Amino acid sequence: MSNIINIEESELLKPGERTDDLQRNGYKIIQNKEKFCFGMDAVLLSGFAKAGRGDKVLDLGTGTGIIPILMEAKTKADHFFAVEIQEESADMARRSVILNGLEEKIDVICADLKEAPILFGKGSMDVVTSNPPYMISNHGITNPDAPKAIARHELLCTLDDVVLTASSVLKEGGRFFMVHRPLRLAEIFETLRKYKLEPKAMRFVHPYADREPGMVLIESIKGAKPEIKVGPPVIIYGPDGKYTKEITETYGY
Amino acid sequence: MSNIINIEESELLKPGERTDDLQRNGYKIIQNKEKFCFGMDAVLLSGFAKAGRGDKVLDLGTGTGIIPILMEAKTKADHFFAVEIQEESADMARRSVILNGLEEKIDVICADLKEAPILFGKGSMDVVTSNPPYMISNHGITNPDAPKAIARHELLCTLDDVVLTASSVLKEGGRFFMVHRPLRLAEIFETLRKYKLEPKAMRFVHPYADREPGMVLIESIKGAKPEIKVGPPVIIYGPDGKYTKEITETYGY
Repeated sequence: MSNIINIEESELLKPGERTDDLQRNGYKIIQNKEKFCFGMDAVLLSGFAKAGRGDKVLDLGTGTGIIPILMEAKTKADHFFAVEIQEESADMARRSVILNGLEEKIDVICADLKEAPILFGKGSMDVVTSNPPYMISNHGITNPDAPKAIARHELLCTLDDVVLTASSVLKEGGRFFMVHRPLRLAEIFETLRKYKLEPKAMRFVHPYADREPGMVLIESIKGAKPEIKVGPPVIIYGPDGKYTKEITETYGY
Repeated sequence: MSNIINIEESELLKPGERTDDLQRNGYKIIQNKEKFCFGMDAVLLSGFAKAGRGDKVLDLGTGTGIIPILMEAKTKADHFFAVEIQEESADMARRSVILNGLEEKIDVICADLKEAPILFGKGSMDVVTSNPPYMISNHGITNPDAPKAIARHELLCTLDDVVLTASSVLKEGGRFFMVHRPLRLAEIFETLRKYKLEPKAMRFVHPYADREPGMVLIESIKGAKPEIKVGPPVIIYGPDGKYTKEITETYGY
């Protein structure tokens, strides 16, 4: 058995790539340290996000495909769609889907996320997830070939684009799960509400219990009434410098 | 000495009232358990709020006067103004000011906070603080004599009133410190930004490290650029059920 898997895996890998075990259902993911690696942000978002039985789920800017692959393991959702603008990254995500035998469950589409309402239809999704670029770009597209820059900076899409797209493809009552930087929270809330996505739940992720959060996980519901439930802080490391129980138990670190 | 103080104190107290030691500069505060008692919210806000040397500070809806009295002890601000709509409460705050010999430093005015821009002038304040009513009222003023109801429910002023007033009396670059419920955070942010108060710093207050926050402390700056710094969580009780070091050291509990 292990021989067969190894042969399949090696056939799916391109130079510079490796596979990492996701500690879920035996799933693995293809990564390239030089180009695309998922962060803890995506893993935490996949744990924070919820999808019910039969749901259609869309991930905007999927990168390596980490979010739909982990959510396929964790939820009873019917089908996952994943949009990624960078062909090299989308190709890597597609091969990870094949590696895990999930071709019937996850579709990876190489496209601009702003085209999602045309590709999938308005009001077509139950759940949307996104780990979008966090940083505002003031310098335009100087090096569009830099995969990491596109994933991290708002070069090809802005926060407004992501939120507008999420709202457009979601059904009334559909849920949007996003991870972002706390620094931009006021703008995030304003943008969500502008597109009728009401922030309903939020958790801040702190490296240590006495440190500022580096990420925020936000759940919004399309057309919902105001009132947001802020959860307990997610703490990554304990005083001993090791992962906390929540991180190891919920996220498999 | 203690005899003199006791005589003064007893002269200032009305039936049902008592004084509580604030653990700061020997300051005391007059309270009436049946009517007006400050909460930990106000004490935490007075620690979160900052005021510089020479600043003019206004507290909107001061209740017992706890916030200006504590801030007088903790900051180098020049003068404090405190507005309270309930005469009985304003009177109690005034007597606490006298009890602590702070008549030259704190003015308590019995007025509707919405009148503050007329009373003090637009753009007249460096700092505004407020621990406003948290709860939306759906039932109108059914019992306007109930002091606790007025302090807790938006019977006589709404969040919009408080924020509009704060913005109006503040100078450009002036700071507004407010404590509120996390549940209303999306609405709070929208209202602050509507009146050009940009949320710049925030801390959530959790009863225990693994529990949801019950309060949020927010600092906004009039006319500032976006970007909010979310601080480490404020945790009230440790795993042993006792106040944490931050609570005892910073707030004197």
